[in-house]
Amino acid sequence: MIPEKTEALKYVNEGSVGTPKGFQSGGLHCGLKYKNLDLGWIYSEYPAVATAVFTTNAFQAAPLVVTKDSIQNGHLLQGVIVNSGNANACTGEKGLSDAYAMRKLFADHVHLSENHVGVLSTGVIGVQLPMDKIEQGIESIKLEDSDAGSFEKAIITTDTMTKHLAVQMEIDGKTVTIGGAAKGSGMIHPNMATMLGFITTDANIDAASLDFALKEITNQTFNMITVDGDTSTNDTVVLMANGAAQNKVLSKEHPEWPTFIKGLTYVSEQLAKKIARDGEGATKLVEVQVTGAKDDTSAKAISKTIVGSSLVKTAIYGTDPNWGRIVCAIGYSGEPLDPSKVSVALGDISIFEKGTPTSYSDAEAKTYLEQENVVIKVDLADGTGKATAWGCDLTYDYVKINASYRT
Amino acid sequence: MIPEKTEALKYVNEGSVGTPKGFQSGGLHCGLKYKNLDLGWIYSEYPAVATAVFTTNAFQAAPLVVTKDSIQNGHLLQGVIVNSGNANACTGEKGLSDAYAMRKLFADHVHLSENHVGVLSTGVIGVQLPMDKIEQGIESIKLEDSDAGSFEKAIITTDTMTKHLAVQMEIDGKTVTIGGAAKGSGMIHPNMATMLGFITTDANIDAASLDFALKEITNQTFNMITVDGDTSTNDTVVLMANGAAQNKVLSKEHPEWPTFIKGLTYVSEQLAKKIARDGEGATKLVEVQVTGAKDDTSAKAISKTIVGSSLVKTAIYGTDPNWGRIVCAIGYSGEPLDPSKVSVALGDISIFEKGTPTSYSDAEAKTYLEQENVVIKVDLADGTGKATAWGCDLTYDYVKINASYRT
Repeated sequence: MIPEKTEALKYVNEGSVGTPKGFQSGGLHCGLKYKNLDLGWIYSEYPAVATAVFTTNAFQAAPLVVTKDSIQNGHLLQGVIVNSGNANACTGEKGLSDAYAMRKLFADHVHLSENHVGVLSTGVIGVQLPMDKIEQGIESIKLEDSDAGSFEKAIITTDTMTKHLAVQMEIDGKTVTIGGAAKGSGMIHPNMATMLGFITTDANIDAASLDFALKEITNQTFNMITVDGDTSTNDTVVLMANGAAQNKVLSKEHPEWPTFIKGLTYVSEQLAKKIARDGEGATKLVEVQVTGAKDDTSAKAISKTIVGSSLVKTAIYGTDPNWGRIVCAIGYSGEPLDPSKVSVALGDISIFEKGTPTSYSDAEAKTYLEQENVVIKVDLADGTGKATAWGCDLTYDYVKINASYRT
Repeated sequence: MIPEKTEALKYVNEGSVGTPKGFQSGGLHCGLKYKNLDLGWIYSEYPAVATAVFTTNAFQAAPLVVTKDSIQNGHLLQGVIVNSGNANACTGEKGLSDAYAMRKLFADHVHLSENHVGVLSTGVIGVQLPMDKIEQGIESIKLEDSDAGSFEKAIITTDTMTKHLAVQMEIDGKTVTIGGAAKGSGMIHPNMATMLGFITTDANIDAASLDFALKEITNQTFNMITVDGDTSTNDTVVLMANGAAQNKVLSKEHPEWPTFIKGLTYVSEQLAKKIARDGEGATKLVEVQVTGAKDDTSAKAISKTIVGSSLVKTAIYGTDPNWGRIVCAIGYSGEPLDPSKVSVALGDISIFEKGTPTSYSDAEAKTYLEQENVVIKVDLADGTGKATAWGCDLTYDYVKINASYRT
């Protein structure tokens, strides 16, 4: 599914956040979950230029406040500590002081300045962190036990698989590596969701350019996925660049800037798609490509509306080419369109052309929907706006997982 | 569950659209469904002042165009013909001419002017109406076979029960009756959904006042329910007032105007709640009351966001008092709020007060959620805006019904 190469990019087998030069990562069990790993860490040998994007939810969890505080103070991170099993969200003043304490514990343990440490949490909302377990866990971290696989496992909740990759490119004759790991898998919706994304790179880049790149790319990748329309209190993507590749400092003026952007986009998009594909209970990855919209913003809204429609999602689960639900979702997106110009295809099977159903074969369409990757193409023929959104089907297991998440 | 009386209103046992004086209604099987009733009709002995509200979906189905045409032409209806099993939506020019033909067939059969007939359809999208069956069905309608129960059955799709009621009130010493029937039950979301609502009354009222009343009341009732966030192509509420009660003409200046509004609101709200409660696969009615919002518009948005959250809906299905999901939904509603002022209760059990979890009993909250009617109360303590929204839980059966709707 993932290409070995995409033009200038080289795919690294089993790559992750520990792949770029100078990065280590690991994970262990500290007791927040019954027996799975639940405490992860990333460490860079050098202070790394850092930026992050956070949930738009009005109830931002305590760790987000702490990570923002660290990044605002010099735009550098050298370590990240993250727990799963408890979101430390809606936990009031105590939750906030616990998040600060978690930062200090890790900073002290690995001899960093507190301002160089980010904190992330994911799991159940509204329960105070058991700080004794967090403390014991942090105390037992050993940087020499670096193992990205353990990090990837320590950050997941209801995910059925870990999500990670790394790519390499040449910049100024140096090999630059970008690695990433992420967790989903419910409460995933545009504008960040209970998703945590970690991207590391040994690129040498200035803070403003790094920040610009992450925000631009997040809007086309992580913010274009939806599992259930719920935007979490904890979503964060954090990006660290430690400069160990020793290329000339990257910025928009650098001739290889597009190469770096291509690499960062590829890593972000792959992580976003892995999150969508592993949505709670999902059996399929659904990609919605919208073209011909008034503008890109409108195309984004339409693609997200389709991929977020419960009726579209259940039809895809049932391999039912009920395109009326797709057209219906386009119609209630609230975006400007001319119904008589709209065309819809499932993969390469045109099912609706300029406002009228085609004489497509229902059996052929049904067979297409049996694939694990379903692409819905919508052309509004009314402008140059385009966008792609990703999601998944809605299954019995989504209900099962979420009807009994805490019990 | 439904009170026998609500102050000035008297509840009519087994009431429906045929209860007000001068109205008849019925239903029969014409072959759009395998064997259930699928063609319904309403007939008034006198031309009735009429108004309607329609879906906001950009793809409005053909029958909506026809009904609008009838109402715009003099604001009178004397008959309505409605089929289930086929939405006649996204069916192009042929669909539109079929909808006009359906109007003419019924008008001719019961000797009405075409402009006095409304047409409604619900069912699968994108399939042409089998006009031979519609024609045969209409030809076999007999006004003397009036039977509201058959009408209620003929309009439903995946509904598990028919939805109807009637109330009476005294106006100018005359008994005025308002009756209603509706169908749900998926693709239900604010701003009308695949829901059809039919309200009849023998009140004497002017067209402008009737139109004003329906629009105001719909915004607080039918537009405040959600099942799955999908807004259909076919939603319509049609209201007919034939004046047979012989009260003095109602308008905002009439001293009994509030009584009429109370009756119309009651009928609309009860139908809306019946639709929400009978959402596809639902086992519970969920009511979300928001107070203390900046204004009513903001309260509406927040209440709809909560009642529409898949994670809240699955938690309620699983009787899991996972209030974090409610708080999270408030947070991503996009509405202005101060997280430190927000309080949440399940029924009378306060679970979150001014931004902090209370020490409520999890067992007690779980027992509360086992009821068939669940009320979530949210106070933002930040203004005087308030609103109530209704929805249902999200269950395995929702997925089952929608993964195989057409097969």
